Amino acid sequence: MLVPLDEQGQINEAELRRFVSWLIDRGVHGLYPNGSTGEFTRFTAEERRRIVQVVADQAGGRVPILAGAAEANVKETLGACEAYAKMGVRAVAIVSPFYYKLAAESVYAYFAEIARHTPLDVTLYNIPMFASPIDVPTIRRLAAEFPRVIGIKDSSGDLAFMMRMMAAVRPIRPDFSFLTGWEAVLVPMLMIGCDGGTNASSNAVPEVTRRLYDLSRAGKYDEAMKWQFRILELFDAMLNPFEFPDGFRAAAEFRGFRFGRGRQPQTSAQRTDRTALASVLQCILADFELVDPPAAGCAPRVREIGHDKVEQVVFEVMHELEKRGVF
Amino acid sequence: MLVPLDEQGQINEAELRRFVSWLIDRGVHGLYPNGSTGEFTRFTAEERRRIVQVVADQAGGRVPILAGAAEANVKETLGACEAYAKMGVRAVAIVSPFYYKLAAESVYAYFAEIARHTPLDVTLYNIPMFASPIDVPTIRRLAAEFPRVIGIKDSSGDLAFMMRMMAAVRPIRPDFSFLTGWEAVLVPMLMIGCDGGTNASSNAVPEVTRRLYDLSRAGKYDEAMKWQFRILELFDAMLNPFEFPDGFRAAAEFRGFRFGRGRQPQTSAQRTDRTALASVLQCILADFELVDPPAAGCAPRVREIGHDKVEQVVFEVMHELEKRGVF
Amino acid sequence: MLVPLDEQGQINEAELRRFVSWLIDRGVHGLYPNGSTGEFTRFTAEERRRIVQVVADQAGGRVPILAGAAEANVKETLGACEAYAKMGVRAVAIVSPFYYKLAAESVYAYFAEIARHTPLDVTLYNIPMFASPIDVPTIRRLAAEFPRVIGIKDSSGDLAFMMRMMAAVRPIRPDFSFLTGWEAVLVPMLMIGCDGGTNASSNAVPEVTRRLYDLSRAGKYDEAMKWQFRILELFDAMLNPFEFPDGFRAAAEFRGFRFGRGRQPQTSAQRTDRTALASVLQCILADFELVDPPAAGCAPRVREIGHDKVEQVVFEVMHELEKRGVF
Amino acid sequence: MLVPLDEQGQINEAELRRFVSWLIDRGVHGLYPNGSTGEFTRFTAEERRRIVQVVADQAGGRVPILAGAAEANVKETLGACEAYAKMGVRAVAIVSPFYYKLAAESVYAYFAEIARHTPLDVTLYNIPMFASPIDVPTIRRLAAEFPRVIGIKDSSGDLAFMMRMMAAVRPIRPDFSFLTGWEAVLVPMLMIGCDGGTNASSNAVPEVTRRLYDLSRAGKYDEAMKWQFRILELFDAMLNPFEFPDGFRAAAEFRGFRFGRGRQPQTSAQRTDRTALASVLQCILADFELVDPPAAGCAPRVREIGHDKVEQVVFEVMHELEKRGVF
Repeated sequence: MLVPLDEQGQINEAELRRFVSWLIDRGVHGLYPNGSTGEFTRFTAEERRRIVQVVADQAGGRVPILAGAAEANVKETLGACEAYAKMGVRAVAIVSPFYYKLAAESVYAYFAEIARHTPLDVTLYNIPMFASPIDVPTIRRLAAEFPRVIGIKDSSGDLAFMMRMMAAVRPIRPDFSFLTGWEAVLVPMLMIGCDGGTNASSNAVPEVTRRLYDLSRAGKYDEAMKWQFRILELFDAMLNPFEFPDGFRAAAEFRGFRFGRGRQPQTSAQRTDRTALASVLQCILADFELVDPPAAGCAPRVREIGHDKVEQVVFEVMHELEKRGVF
Repeated sequence: MLVPLDEQGQINEAELRRFVSWLIDRGVHGLYPNGSTGEFTRFTAEERRRIVQVVADQAGGRVPILAGAAEANVKETLGACEAYAKMGVRAVAIVSPFYYKLAAESVYAYFAEIARHTPLDVTLYNIPMFASPIDVPTIRRLAAEFPRVIGIKDSSGDLAFMMRMMAAVRPIRPDFSFLTGWEAVLVPMLMIGCDGGTNASSNAVPEVTRRLYDLSRAGKYDEAMKWQFRILELFDAMLNPFEFPDGFRAAAEFRGFRFGRGRQPQTSAQRTDRTALASVLQCILADFELVDPPAAGCAPRVREIGHDKVEQVVFEVMHELEKRGVF
Repeated sequence: MLVPLDEQGQINEAELRRFVSWLIDRGVHGLYPNGSTGEFTRFTAEERRRIVQVVADQAGGRVPILAGAAEANVKETLGACEAYAKMGVRAVAIVSPFYYKLAAESVYAYFAEIARHTPLDVTLYNIPMFASPIDVPTIRRLAAEFPRVIGIKDSSGDLAFMMRMMAAVRPIRPDFSFLTGWEAVLVPMLMIGCDGGTNASSNAVPEVTRRLYDLSRAGKYDEAMKWQFRILELFDAMLNPFEFPDGFRAAAEFRGFRFGRGRQPQTSAQRTDRTALASVLQCILADFELVDPPAAGCAPRVREIGHDKVEQVVFEVMHELEKRGVF
Repeated sequence: MLVPLDEQGQINEAELRRFVSWLIDRGVHGLYPNGSTGEFTRFTAEERRRIVQVVADQAGGRVPILAGAAEANVKETLGACEAYAKMGVRAVAIVSPFYYKLAAESVYAYFAEIARHTPLDVTLYNIPMFASPIDVPTIRRLAAEFPRVIGIKDSSGDLAFMMRMMAAVRPIRPDFSFLTGWEAVLVPMLMIGCDGGTNASSNAVPEVTRRLYDLSRAGKYDEAMKWQFRILELFDAMLNPFEFPDGFRAAAEFRGFRFGRGRQPQTSAQRTDRTALASVLQCILADFELVDPPAAGCAPRVREIGHDKVEQVVFEVMHELEKRGVF
């Protein structure tokens, strides 16, 4: 979940409440405040608690809440878990340690210490683009030893990795939940056995991610894939040209919410770019018949290529890495 | 296709012929000599031609042949294409330039020059782990301009990338073929719309990769996924602990072929390891009821974890990259 | 600077004060609390302020203080700057945004917003292994526009990158300071024109890093390089087998300080390893004649190879990256 | 060494001879045909032999020749070594295996097999941007076991890695040579103890790389660094905006040689770009007073920033890697 801010950059609680109810009304199965899309690192510890408080209060039990609870260290994290337990949260999601990138044994030690003391069920949060990775043996070890560890949210998007996790954990913990955070491949993830998704795109098009889920669960993969291709186009357009999660914020604004400027400063050049990029999002959303097209109309879209360029860039970068004495 | 060698390290033509017929008998839809699994870089230009000659002769038109045709430069590559055309090959596969890693514009220039002059249809071969990547705009550009470019073999294993290619190319070239070289995710690749696979595992278990294809095409994804999980276990066991493609060679040897030592030298420690690792492969293949188990029996297998370790290692390596002044 | 903790994991202020004076007595030119070695992310905002308060108070003006001031967002960071200004700190060091990894324009926007409002001089802190990189054009742009931005601490260790920064910035800001955080190459960095180093190794051997500086400044490179090779051995032994900064902590403990367990949990296996690894550090430090050797004596050392293994691993990982559909 | 081609793309032997003598006249200590700058992979096995033949014949013993001898496999490589021995070559340089990227044990096995049978001294060639890396323990092992292995050319540019190699090998093989292929940091490499450089820039400015060597050997680091900064500017301008080694070719053309078009095809857009980029090279070379400036004059140069952009791109790419399920 995104967090609306007011003109002063403070949490806009009224808008946050309105957003919570809107998401529930459009079919989300749960709410997830203080995730990466919620920019948890850009709020203070006090603000993070306030966000969960408001979301839980507004949800009022209509859907369960998975609250991001990572703080500066284990003691602070457990303090947050205690607080969230009192707010009626269903479970917490704990991102793997970040900044320092830790070895598997240290990742295990961190989650084990939390799992021993938490008053709430814990979902591991594997987002290797931002934090130390949680590998399959570590997941298996935590699943085997700690009943409080009940699932994993994986934002890697790697289907083979997801299969390896399921093959390693399900025989010993059939109740363990596997959620994907990479909606670019949500339908194939559901096909191979994922339990669901916690997807940033649901901030903008909750009806559509829900539809992908329902069609996949019904085994209607042909129809599900038609929507999957469309979500992929939207996802690429929200993800690539913007600083995350600003593209998702820009799209959700077209659904009628004011999210404010965000706490990461932007140059005036960036603000100008954002306006142009947002109008592409408006056109894609208009095709979904969820918003009106821009008054100026929409040009025929060619496939967005920023993403593909990156692939070349990877190789060019590898040169660079290597030239600088890396390998 | 792997290439059997004799005691002197020369191509074992008799064994190669026997292998060709065995593969065809077990249901492969085509043959692909001089690919990465065929270690094309470790043969001389003359040997590469001889390999295609033998394969084409032995196949005798029973299945089509896609011949790897990359040589030292465009002129030499076109010479190989001419030779393969005379041998009755259906198409060539050309890997993107390697050693030097090229920018997208140069990759385009390279394939365009070939496509202008080739007497045979060309399949692009994208194997970014070994060669310059071919990005989506380049694929689209080549597909739009050159009817001789008829498809792509992609060994990246990225489903979102595959979808992006299909979304970009199919509207302008509905005949264009999309093949995956990453059998770890063959079933989901077929589900999202891939036309087929050219998979190293088919050297060892052609019946099983064929079964994945048939079940997926019939829409029987639940059953297909059962086999997909088993292929994933085998694939990981052939790929990770060995130098590629030696694990595939070790598995195919259990099917009754002698491939010889390979041209990359091994230390005696490596040869000892290989024996132990191969017995694991034998156990997995025995579970498929394709070979007998080892006389010593098979221990219960825990999920192979080499692959997962890599994920941690990636992060540790990133430290290293970064520490050395890369970023 | 490392931060000593007590048995309860709280800041051990008495030991911190003793450590500050010990470092000053051994010749450090300044103190740098709340850096990466100081594990700033594992303390709360209140604790970070307390650390700077204690260090500044104990230093009592004997050496200048560069205080790490990064907080959750720009507003909080500026609040820390205000507080540190009142404590008599000479300048702040601000690490580039982390977790989310930002484009250059966003890195610029972030530092520009801080530079406009800070009451203290700002040193940019480029540590690309942990945070968004600060590239040369961004450094030049910040140096050109903001007199408050007075230098950069670069922990990349890339000499060519350092030369590029100097070539880009010195013509327009001859006063700008270039500090290296990569003591593995401190002498060559000083030779090419760096102004100094802020080095984690100074927690363990402040006399030796100071000697490298003095010999280099005197142009005695032959003698400086003898010590550089020895610092490299120690550095590799503190960095590679431990989770950062635990190896530096283990070495500094041999100098007579109690740092406590650290806030990142460890498994019992890790604690056992630490004991063995620490005895290697003791042997290296004994060679410097700074501590006594272990009672059990020291085996002849072979060059530590963990670091070198990483180089192979990088390549193996690249396979993996590529195989998974990355390029 | 670059290889001049004629209008038909064949080796221009007359121009090659003229180039050899020009390089010797300008002070190079040796010649190195069939290296990466010599695009050895784009020639046939026969052409590679012809190139060495012509170079050796033209040099006529005035300077020693280090001939690149890597072929498709060990047997073919040894055949090339035999041929080069007869041509009077001083030693061969063998690049680590490429395309397939090999583990350290396999890299060892490969070089050991060559070292056992070679009739010529062997220099290991570590160019991790293009080929499997050769790590420190492998270098030490080869140096310890095979007197025929007499040195390493390292193109990584990592000073700490160079120091680690020297620390590991010199105690057991004081005669072993350490050469750097990364002239961006040639002076600091010489300062820390490198024996010399084999540098692509010597194709364009052999007088200047020689001057860096002479000044460094004389301990005149201040003056050497002035030239080092200038070489860095030229190097970045030859390396970054071009496909390697085309920028080095473009610069060397200004010295009066015709190298032809190169064997990698270029689009017309690339050819246009090349003209513009080459005029920047001409301006830099004019500053060295080695060539005349362009008739149109030279604009004041701002530091070339392509290189720096890459650093940001690395981070952006890492997102991408990670997003695609890599870590």
